[in-house]
Amino acid sequence: MALFSSLTPVFIAIICVLIGIILKSNRNSGKKGKSETENKSKSHPWVDEDLKDSTDLHVEEEDADGDWQGLEENIAHVPFSAERYSEDEMIKRSKEFYELLNKRRSVRFISDEPVPKEVIDNVIKAAGTSPSGAHTEPWTFVVVQDPKVKHKIREIIEEEEEINYKKRMGDRWVNDLKRLRTNWIKEYLDRAPYLILIFKQVHGMLPNGRKKTHYYNEISVSIACGMLLAALQNVGLVTVTSTPLNCGPRLRVLLRRPTNEKLLLLLPVGYPSKDATVPDLTRKPLDEIMVAM
Amino acid sequence: MALFSSLTPVFIAIICVLIGIILKSNRNSGKKGKSETENKSKSHPWVDEDLKDSTDLHVEEEDADGDWQGLEENIAHVPFSAERYSEDEMIKRSKEFYELLNKRRSVRFISDEPVPKEVIDNVIKAAGTSPSGAHTEPWTFVVVQDPKVKHKIREIIEEEEEINYKKRMGDRWVNDLKRLRTNWIKEYLDRAPYLILIFKQVHGMLPNGRKKTHYYNEISVSIACGMLLAALQNVGLVTVTSTPLNCGPRLRVLLRRPTNEKLLLLLPVGYPSKDATVPDLTRKPLDEIMVAM
Repeated sequence: MALFSSLTPVFIAIICVLIGIILKSNRNSGKKGKSETENKSKSHPWVDEDLKDSTDLHVEEEDADGDWQGLEENIAHVPFSAERYSEDEMIKRSKEFYELLNKRRSVRFISDEPVPKEVIDNVIKAAGTSPSGAHTEPWTFVVVQDPKVKHKIREIIEEEEEINYKKRMGDRWVNDLKRLRTNWIKEYLDRAPYLILIFKQVHGMLPNGRKKTHYYNEISVSIACGMLLAALQNVGLVTVTSTPLNCGPRLRVLLRRPTNEKLLLLLPVGYPSKDATVPDLTRKPLDEIMVAM
Repeated sequence: MALFSSLTPVFIAIICVLIGIILKSNRNSGKKGKSETENKSKSHPWVDEDLKDSTDLHVEEEDADGDWQGLEENIAHVPFSAERYSEDEMIKRSKEFYELLNKRRSVRFISDEPVPKEVIDNVIKAAGTSPSGAHTEPWTFVVVQDPKVKHKIREIIEEEEEINYKKRMGDRWVNDLKRLRTNWIKEYLDRAPYLILIFKQVHGMLPNGRKKTHYYNEISVSIACGMLLAALQNVGLVTVTSTPLNCGPRLRVLLRRPTNEKLLLLLPVGYPSKDATVPDLTRKPLDEIMVAM
């Protein structure tokens, strides 16, 4: 008992050390998760941040509204009527619109000829009529005309593409050499009179300063881009739908967009150049894309 | 000292209990996370499966192709030219197209009047001209005319909505009662002459039976939906963009679509009913959606 009581301080010390170790390991495991994230973001500091936008996929039931009209409780309803065409007219209009859109191709050979700014304003106004989840209109269209800004955009994108292609070459050198030559250099980023960079606003701000989640923001902004592509085709301008995935955050900083905006698409816009070519692709016939029942 | 040593067992006991509590709380916090996930997937067994489609967000650099034209190495290129309009014509066309689209509203009051099927075929053909990542055309448009199938769709969607609303009522009963009355019952699913269910194909199949990832499939299909909405507006038909999120897998099974297809949007399509109303909303002006530099 004497031995025991003389050892008491030792026991207590050992136990204190044990508690200390347990507490520390707890904190470390927390830190470890954090530092892993830090490491990841080091290798591509912008990628993880950009991929954090999962608001489109993990919608909580409580706030998800099936028909996108969640914020209407206090809004008056007004009568609605639409243009009414005869059946023959409808068939004719639908056919002509299909024929117009069917001539659209993704074109990378864009002329540097100027295009009236008013046309660009109007096609973006057309895109802005798109529906959006709870009428949040979560889009920002950045229209770049300034040659210096366009060139900086090109530098950022080609730098990233170069990394992508060089990484690729390790595995698939022979096959990809051909692609390398055509794809890495994006001359249209300098030549096109306009670059339209489309940002999705992944959240908004409530009056109390808290974040307001924009549900379905990616779907909404993509739908708006569909309308934009149709509007461009309607005036005889061409573009190529591009997704400069790894460049988003750097381009966001360059264009001084806030952190709640993420780059979704970049569209170089102009007339096609005289020697423009497109790959000889066909589209799936109706019976491969439609099922009627 | 004697007092101290006689209290030693008590000290040790207290310290052991402390360690026990710390260890237990560790394990619990781990378990808690797990059981929360389990609960979530229990209440909606199909949701998680449907949300597994993250192909749009986690694109590996190796396979992501910035300008969506990844599969062209062996495809011949052909000359391309576009319709050329005078500047005045371009401005006029862009303004008229904006004015046409600006009359579009999401309408839930849809007449049961029949609509020529040829018009529906043409608007879907128009949607099918949309660009897609590596020209995968990852869309399936299921057009439902059969009243029995439409009614089954309505049953599935209203059942899910009922669960959503009843869950909500626990927290926000008074505020949401109004929404409940208008939103839970979706009469248009029976009345609209057509329901167009748009599926994204999250992957395809290679000749060797392996999966072929469809990058950017959600963005691609959403862009196609933007073209579809423009095409519908162009013929005087109305719809409401809806995302029956929790119903996707049940509707997929009902419509006998393969597992690589996930429901993205459901559009009821028809003429507006005579007493149709829409919420009195306005759209953001151009300077709030466009930044020029």
